Amino acid sequence: MIILGIDPGIAIVGYSIIECKGNSFKAIDYGCITTEANMLFPERLKIVYDEITKIIEKYQPEDLAVEELFFNKNVKTAIKVGQARGVEVLACVNKGLDIFEYTPLQIKQSVVGYGRADKKQVQEMVKILLNLKEIPKPDDVADALAVAICHGSSLKFKDSFRMK
Amino acid sequence: MIILGIDPGIAIVGYSIIECKGNSFKAIDYGCITTEANMLFPERLKIVYDEITKIIEKYQPEDLAVEELFFNKNVKTAIKVGQARGVEVLACVNKGLDIFEYTPLQIKQSVVGYGRADKKQVQEMVKILLNLKEIPKPDDVADALAVAICHGSSLKFKDSFRMK
Repeated sequence: MIILGIDPGIAIVGYSIIECKGNSFKAIDYGCITTEANMLFPERLKIVYDEITKIIEKYQPEDLAVEELFFNKNVKTAIKVGQARGVEVLACVNKGLDIFEYTPLQIKQSVVGYGRADKKQVQEMVKILLNLKEIPKPDDVADALAVAICHGSSLKFKDSFRMK
Repeated sequence: MIILGIDPGIAIVGYSIIECKGNSFKAIDYGCITTEANMLFPERLKIVYDEITKIIEKYQPEDLAVEELFFNKNVKTAIKVGQARGVEVLACVNKGLDIFEYTPLQIKQSVVGYGRADKKQVQEMVKILLNLKEIPKPDDVADALAVAICHGSSLKFKDSFRMK
């Protein structure tokens, strides 16, 4: 099964396409979509939507895995990233994907086996599990791979993680 | 010129279509799009996107006017409504509309002439300016009319209100 992982954002959107067979994972593609801060926000939303649509058309993933958004402080940022996440999810649902979301804790638990793992440990495990030569950069890309792996490891229970 | 006003949301999205000639405004259509809380969130986003697209196709507005989101407390709500607002804006930009946003203060100032006006005063003025028999219900619809009127009154300076 092919899974699309997304690390939501507007300036940088990390994405990953992984293939998952049983317990083994293969990275098919990964990278990030970027939009310039000097563009109008609606245009940036459109770029993100169009680019995700293209990725889906190219790789035909069945499921989207995305991290749950948490913000403790900056509500302004929450609203900006929230809007971006909305169009990212919409691109997927418009292409018929099922949508699943995971908390940072669930992702760490799944990828490292330990919910309090730090970012570096998660990235190391992403590299090992996907047999990559280097840790993918920037962090947004590694995060998009991690959430896809997390979903791939949770397929038996995936109904519990459907975005509600 | 035809203006689309939107009061962002996910359970209830207020919308308005007004025609604006000089200083006179005419309500062409108004109402709300609703989605059920028991549906999956991605499906709700899709409904909102599709319904707004239909409204645009029917009335061919040139500009979208939308209220700026403010949340003081509930970040969870901010993220939900933020995602909805993202797809609402996207529906408009995908149809070639220009996107403008106004703060609650600017809307009150424009519609009532007084930035600290209360909700009831805004609704009364919406009724008067559009020559309606009654105040439109629910509040989301009146808000969508108010932001469209605000934009219609600000056309000369509209570049200052472009969503960035």
